Order: sequence, then structure tokens, then C-alpha cells
Amino acid sequence: MPQSLDEVRYELALANRMVAHEGVLDAFGHVSMRHPDDPNRYLLSRSRSPELVEPGDILEFDVDSEPVAPPSVRLYGERVIHGEIYKARPDVTAVCHHHAAAFMPYCVSGEEVVPVYHLGAVIGAKAPFWDQRDDFGDTNLLVIEPKEGASLAKALGPHWVVVMRRHGVTVAGRTLQEVVFRTIYSCRNAEYLTQAKLIGIPSPLNPRETERAADYNLAPGPVARAWEYWSMRLAKAGGTPPQATKSARGGARTAAGRAKSSGGAKKTPKKGRKR
Amino acid sequence: MPQSLDEVRYELALANRMVAHEGVLDAFGHVSMRHPDDPNRYLLSRSRSPELVEPGDILEFDVDSEPVAPPSVRLYGERVIHGEIYKARPDVTAVCHHHAAAFMPYCVSGEEVVPVYHLGAVIGAKAPFWDQRDDFGDTNLLVIEPKEGASLAKALGPHWVVVMRRHGVTVAGRTLQEVVFRTIYSCRNAEYLTQAKLIGIPSPLNPRETERAADYNLAPGPVARAWEYWSMRLAKAGGTPPQATKSARGGARTAAGRAKSSGGAKKTPKKGRKR
Amino acid sequence: MPQSLDEVRYELALANRMVAHEGVLDAFGHVSMRHPDDPNRYLLSRSRSPELVEPGDILEFDVDSEPVAPPSVRLYGERVIHGEIYKARPDVTAVCHHHAAAFMPYCVSGEEVVPVYHLGAVIGAKAPFWDQRDDFGDTNLLVIEPKEGASLAKALGPHWVVVMRRHGVTVAGRTLQEVVFRTIYSCRNAEYLTQAKLIGIPSPLNPRETERAADYNLAPGPVARAWEYWSMRLAKAGGTPPQATKSARGGARTAAGRAKSSGGAKKTPKKGRKR
Amino acid sequence: MPQSLDEVRYELALANRMVAHEGVLDAFGHVSMRHPDDPNRYLLSRSRSPELVEPGDILEFDVDSEPVAPPSVRLYGERVIHGEIYKARPDVTAVCHHHAAAFMPYCVSGEEVVPVYHLGAVIGAKAPFWDQRDDFGDTNLLVIEPKEGASLAKALGPHWVVVMRRHGVTVAGRTLQEVVFRTIYSCRNAEYLTQAKLIGIPSPLNPRETERAADYNLAPGPVARAWEYWSMRLAKAGGTPPQATKSARGGARTAAGRAKSSGGAKKTPKKGRKR
Repeated sequence: MPQSLDEVRYELALANRMVAHEGVLDAFGHVSMRHPDDPNRYLLSRSRSPELVEPGDILEFDVDSEPVAPPSVRLYGERVIHGEIYKARPDVTAVCHHHAAAFMPYCVSGEEVVPVYHLGAVIGAKAPFWDQRDDFGDTNLLVIEPKEGASLAKALGPHWVVVMRRHGVTVAGRTLQEVVFRTIYSCRNAEYLTQAKLIGIPSPLNPRETERAADYNLAPGPVARAWEYWSMRLAKAGGTPPQATKSARGGARTAAGRAKSSGGAKKTPKKGRKR
Repeated sequence: MPQSLDEVRYELALANRMVAHEGVLDAFGHVSMRHPDDPNRYLLSRSRSPELVEPGDILEFDVDSEPVAPPSVRLYGERVIHGEIYKARPDVTAVCHHHAAAFMPYCVSGEEVVPVYHLGAVIGAKAPFWDQRDDFGDTNLLVIEPKEGASLAKALGPHWVVVMRRHGVTVAGRTLQEVVFRTIYSCRNAEYLTQAKLIGIPSPLNPRETERAADYNLAPGPVARAWEYWSMRLAKAGGTPPQATKSARGGARTAAGRAKSSGGAKKTPKKGRKR
Repeated sequence: MPQSLDEVRYELALANRMVAHEGVLDAFGHVSMRHPDDPNRYLLSRSRSPELVEPGDILEFDVDSEPVAPPSVRLYGERVIHGEIYKARPDVTAVCHHHAAAFMPYCVSGEEVVPVYHLGAVIGAKAPFWDQRDDFGDTNLLVIEPKEGASLAKALGPHWVVVMRRHGVTVAGRTLQEVVFRTIYSCRNAEYLTQAKLIGIPSPLNPRETERAADYNLAPGPVARAWEYWSMRLAKAGGTPPQATKSARGGARTAAGRAKSSGGAKKTPKKGRKR
Repeated sequence: MPQSLDEVRYELALANRMVAHEGVLDAFGHVSMRHPDDPNRYLLSRSRSPELVEPGDILEFDVDSEPVAPPSVRLYGERVIHGEIYKARPDVTAVCHHHAAAFMPYCVSGEEVVPVYHLGAVIGAKAPFWDQRDDFGDTNLLVIEPKEGASLAKALGPHWVVVMRRHGVTVAGRTLQEVVFRTIYSCRNAEYLTQAKLIGIPSPLNPRETERAADYNLAPGPVARAWEYWSMRLAKAGGTPPQATKSARGGARTAAGRAKSSGGAKKTPKKGRKR
């Protein structure tokens, strides 16, 4: 099911809003995806809180995190988090960077996050740490220079979640839906682990359980079920992104699509969309 | 007060949405009930997040968890949780399987959940543990094979709540309303127990208090009061299920019912329904 | 500013909904007030979740907790909590009974709740415990018999908040607005105390500070400011009680009042009401 | 970009509502700003819960916290918190006083709040304590007398956040947007610090990291991004302040502005406003 770039932009705006609406992102953090037609580019919003991102805000960057077209808008400072991971990890097509409350106690204390229930297995067997101090000393803690992004990508290695000391988390996925799923359920897992530590001794999944449970839960069925759920919650809160309207992009097709949904755009935004 | 199967499907969809809306279920988990006319069958939604379940999503399964009619839709993987409990426990007519935050610290640490206030008595004097590792070694932690469901049902024994290590919880009830009530108030009890452990030594109910308080709170009055409350909260959030509309089912009756409520369907969905 | 009984019923329904909307009451718990014209009677809803109480649900009881008129509806089981406190404490004109999450760790562990910030001073210097086991052994933990209510009232003594082991809390006040204020801010205080215990040694207010801060915060200004705030929050959530409509009660006056607010009843429910 | 006083009042009402809507203020607490044209005056609402403040509620006070015009409405008791800080700190143009749950464990226990992530750096390297007992003995804990406000301002010293024992917090900023940003992110930081303490040993930012991260995050870009986000959340909840309508103030200009936004005032309240 090929998607037009307009549709991809819509999906990415939706993903940003969804993850924000579930409490993982606030004014800061962002979700990107690799360009579907050019593996040396990725898509990311202009500088804007993720719950406000619209399809028209999504810009193209090369993997050095330079904008493909000269920008007339402010860009995120931490683009290299995305670009350097796309460079280092050909299997990754989507990245989320966040500072969710669930993970911050681990970012701050350096305690390890381990999978403690079947859905938490999406973290993988190991979530490595990255401490900006190790390579760069006293910084502003932001990941802005390419070498900082490369250092982070190196710490991520072959894993899916990297915990950034005194900062936040970066999550990678093989698809946009997977990175959303992993981001949200790794947060749930971190919350349950914290609470379990307070009342006893956590008994985590072992590596084989982790692998098997991750395989099961990252299959299309469970991932689609969760995506539908988060979409519904966002829609009920009036947060679904508007359809792109820029005349420069696929005007006819989009106009047709909008005519079909005639006024109900807000309530049933996905009518007629291919999934 | 006999109910048509359409009405039963509506109630079950409502129960799924209610328990989800109260924060016990998220994208995953499900509530089922035994078929009112055939004790060897049960009703459960097709694979869908519980807060989205519609009456038309509810399918029939035999107690071996096979669909009665060949399905054209995706089914939940963990149906045997329900089927094997219905098989083992003739007194049970409704089952809820969930992964609520309140219980996860206990699933993860293996600490026991005990009733610590009158409403928590609905748990019963004991909430046994089930560890899939004991019988099956390293699995994906899902309960998919009949033998896995049977092992879980055996662990539940004569009790009402079984805590599944590194997974979640399964709750049984004598009626649909009872299983909803027990599910929600057992979560509240687990939360209060956790907090009490953090500041001191919990003093739980003794077995006689537990039995007496459970008897009082599971009587029709309290259970109906809570059901009305959760229904209202769901309705205010716009989450009441739509009335079934499939022409194959009681078309005339349903059409009449909808004419009566004329447009106000969304706000007063239960006008004229028998309870 | 004398109030008609219809206005008093409206205020009491509003108080029930407000305290529920702030998360202190759920399906259970209730707020009552002494009858404004007869100190030997009190007003309390029929058995219904507090967030659903309507002015027409409010009934009259004598201080032995018997309904003044033969009831055609189900009554709360725990009326004696209210009646026995009105009997024992002539200075009390409003009572709230609840099971709020904030207090449950204290009910369960027996640790003392002490005022730890200026608004928490409304608890008073001491919040005594009551353990139903002491006088009555193994019960269902509900307070249903007059002697149980009397025992609780005795434990309350001259204080304003009594913590009920394995059950909940009962709060008394000199006015309806005061009991709402004390109920909500004593919960906040309990939450902050719990969190403070987790990270260090709480340093509570001393008795003189408690008295002075309570005097300041229970003056009409602060109490009215908070009442307006909680009313607004409830109104924004669509939870304001409907105006009474029973023809048996002040029909003409009410009809006039409703004509004046012409359709905007939902958004500005208190237009023209005396406070 | 010069702003009319009407626009300033609107911004200040918005700031009060925004900080309340994010859960930092409840019925109590307030945000003020220095008068844009007269450094010896400041702007603060009449006594009202901050989430209800309207532009027309904003009054002018001199730095001794006396109202410039004789008031016909009730005033906040704790105005001197604002006035005495404006007096002592010429670099401060906005002040927020609150009792947020995030900070209360620190107010109660006396444990120090330190920055533990890049956004928490807005606290600064030190958040000093102030204990009213030290200078004034047993009080009602409110800050009402000028000498009490002066003592608090002295404890704040050159810092940005002062933690008030058994009471709350006062936050200062160089702009209104900065004080909102610092208030909200210092609360997030306190929450993460608390959680980190529960599971391990927090590793805070060092002073150089704190200074650099604060400089980065308090630049106009990040601060505006967050302001847009909190505004959007408030607007979605129907909480945007009404435009001022008092005929005495800039009637023509305002009327023009309102004509332009024609009916959409509620949804897009900032159309055409200068930032």
C-alpha cells in the first residue's frame, strides 16, 4: 500500500500528537521518520510542540540534519539525534526523542530499566545509558552538534532505547507505528518497575521471554490495535491533525478526499484513508 | 427481566468501555460474559481495544474458545483465559483480563495483594499467583494455548482474582456488573495497599471482615450505584457504545427503540432500556 | 441572606458533585447538612453516587437517621454517620464521609495525619482514629447501626476529622462551604505528607500555627474563593446540578428563575442566585 | 513590540490561567507582573482563583502593595510577596507564588531541590529556603505584613526560586513568559527528583551545566514554543480569558480587533495579537 508524501506527513503529524496526548511528550520532544523514497533523508516538524504539529509543518532533512530546502521557519535544535541514528542504523525508519516522567527517575539516578511485563518486552533485553559528560564534559545537555548525535547513536548500538543521563530518552523503531508503540509501552514498563521497586524486588523477564514477547507484541495485529486506540483518544480530545491544504502538494487528490468527508473532517478524519 | 441478545451485547460493550474509561484497561485487556442461553458458550469482542468495542463486535465462542461462526475478523489471542475459566467454574458468568497499573507492582514483585478496606474485600480473602514459568518455562508470556488457560484457571481455583507474574490480572464474577465492580475496586485496593506500604505497616481485613464486607458491597444496591456512576462518567466523555444496527439482528425492535430516543441517542443512551 | 429550602437542596447537590469532581468521592461517600430550620433534622441524598445527586434527590432525616417521610427510594446504609454527629455536636452543620485515595494509606497503616502546610491546618491539631474492631469486633466495616455511629461520633470528639481504620474518613464543619473546604484541603495535606515521608522527615505545623492558619483560611474570603473555583471546574465539565423541577416545591419562583436564565442554564447556572 | 495596557492585562490573565491549568495553582496562588510603564508599580488580580482571572480583574499596586486606586473588590492577602520582591530585585518583572504538589514534599521536609535535567536548570544552581518561624515565630504562615515579604525577598536573594517551609514556593522571572516557564519546569524537575530519590541516588547537574542549560532553555525560541503549547491546552479546555470589554479602556481598538476575529474569539483568541 504505497502512500503519497502528503499521507506520510499526515501520519507523522498524527504520531507526534498521539505520543504527546498519551503524556510522553510535552512542550518538547519529537517524532521523526525516514523519508519513504530516499533513505538519506528524514522527515521532522519545524520547531513546534509535538501536540500542535500539522502536516504542513513537516520538513525534509538530509542525514546530516541539514534542511533540504532553505527554511523560513525555526528548526528544532536537536535534529542530530534523528539524523545520526538514521545514519548509523539502516534498519531504523522512525525515531522518538522524549523526556517522559516515567523514565526521568532512571535518567537521574542511573538505575537500569529492565522489561518487567510482556508489553515492556518491546524495550528489548537492554536499554543502554548515554552520559554526555563522558565525551563532552560540561555542556548545556542538549544534543546539537553532529558529534554529539553520533556519540548518542553509538551508545544506542544495536538496541532500541537509549537512556540519556540528566536529559531523557531516545527510542528507535522499524516503522512509525512500532516506534510509537515502543515509546508508550516502554514508559508504562518504567512506571511499573518503579512502583515494584518501592514494595519489593522486581523479577524481570529473562532474555528469551523478552525476545518472544517482543516478537508477539510488535506483530501488525497488536500494533494496529493500539494505534487505533490512541487515535480514538486523540480524536475524542479534538486533537486530530488537520488535512494538509498547501496548494503546492497534491491539490486535486486532497480536494477530492476532503469533498468526500464533507464537513465531518474533524470527527472522522481517517475515512477513506489507506492503512 | 429477560434480555434480548442485542441487549446483552450492548451491556458487554458498555462494560468493556466503562472499565477502560476508569483506567483499568488500555489498548489491551478484555471483558467477556457467559452466553445467557447456553452455558457452553461465551461472548467476547473481536480483537479491538476495549474502549472502542461496539455491540456489533461481540462474537460467540464455545468454551474451547473456538468461534461459533467462522470469523471474518481478527480475534483476540488470549481467548482461552475466558474459555478455560468458564469451563472450570460453573458459578462464573463474567471474566475480565487486564494489566492495570495498580496491580502491576504486585505482578512484578510477587508481593501479595490483601484487602485493606471494606470495598477491597471484593477481592476475597486470597488472590493467588500464577507464574507461567512454572508449567511452561520461557514463553512469550501470553496465554494462548488451551493448556495455558487451564493452568491459569487451576491457579484461580475457587477464588475471584488471580495475579499473573510479569503479565497482569484475571478477575471472575457471578454477574457482569459484579466483575466490573470487583475489577475496579480491587485496583483501588491495590493502590491504597501500595501507598500504605510506603508509609507504614498495612493492617488488612481479617477473613471474617472480608467475607462480611464483600457480601454487603456485592449486593445489588451498591453494585447498581457504582454501575450508574461509571456509566455517567463514560457518557459525559462521549464514550457510550452505539446501539447495534446490523439488520440481521432484531431490526424492528431496535429501530423502534431508536425512534423513541430521537436524536438524543448520544446523551441519553439508556432511555427506555430495561435494567 | 435566608435561603429557601429549594436553594439549600441545590447547594447540597452542588457540594456533593463538587467534592466528587475533585476526586475525593467516587461511587460512594456523601455530604449532608443540618436542616436550616430544624436542628433535629438533616438533609441527605437518596442512595446515589454523589456526582449524580440532584436537588430532587435530597431527603429529610431526623437525627436518629429515620426518614421524615416514608421513602419510595433506596437510602444510604451509612446515614448514622451523619445523624449521630449532628446529635453529639451542636456546632456542626455539615458532614462529609469519604474514602479518598489521599487518606487511605493512613486508614490502612494507622499512621497519623498531621497538618504540614497552612491550608492543611483546617484539619485541626489532631485527627483522631476510630477502629470499629475496638467496640464491635469483626463487622462488615460499614457504619449502619446507631450505636456504631455514636461510637464514631465519640471518637471524633471535639475535632473536625476522624480517620476510620480500614474504611475512610468523616469530616465535620460549621457550614456546608467549610466542610467542603476542609474535606478537599485535608486530602491535599495528606498527599503532601505522604510524599514528604518518602523523601525525608516531615516538619508539621505546631498547635499555635495550626490554630492561626485555620482561622485565616476558614474566613469567608478564602472559603468563597475556593468554592467559586470548584464550581467553575464542575461547570466546565458539565456537572452543575439541574434546577429542582418538582411541582410540589416553589413552582412559580423556580419557573421565573428559569425563564430569566433562558437557555443558558447549563453555562451560567448560578445567575441570579443569592449567595 | 509595544503593548497596550489592555494587552498586558490579557497576557497576565492568560498566564494565571495557564499555570493553573497545568496543575501548579489551584484555588490559591497568583502570578503578577511589574507595570510595563512604571517600575514602581505592579499588576495583580483582585482576590480570585487564578484559573478564573479576567483582564478586567487586574489591578495596579505600588511596590508597597497598596492599590493605586481605592479598591471596590476584595484583594489578595499576600500581595507583599510580589511587592517586596519587585522592590528588592530591579531585574525581576514577573513573580509567581504557588503551593504545587511537586514542591510540597520539599517545603514539608526541608530537603533541597536541585536541578536534575536540562529543563530543570531553569531553577538555577540554588533554590534557597525561607522559614517564617526564624524571623516571626508562630504565625498563621501567611505572608501579609511588608516585613514578612521583605524577609522572604531577602531569602530569595539573587536566586529565582525560594522554597517556603510549610507553605509553598515563590518564583521570579525577567519576563512573564520566563516566570511561567520556570514555574512549570521547576515543578517537573521536583517531581523527577522525588521519584529518583525513591529508586536510587540522584545525580544532579553541576553548576556549569545548570548555567548553560538554563541559558539555552530560557532563550526566546524554547520559551515561546512552550507558551504556545500551554495556550493551546488551555484553549482546548475552554479556558482562554475573555477579551476585556470595559468601555473605559481602548474601546475603539478592541472593538476593531474583535470585529476581525468575528465569532471565532473562543477558538482562536490570539489571532491578530502582537507577540
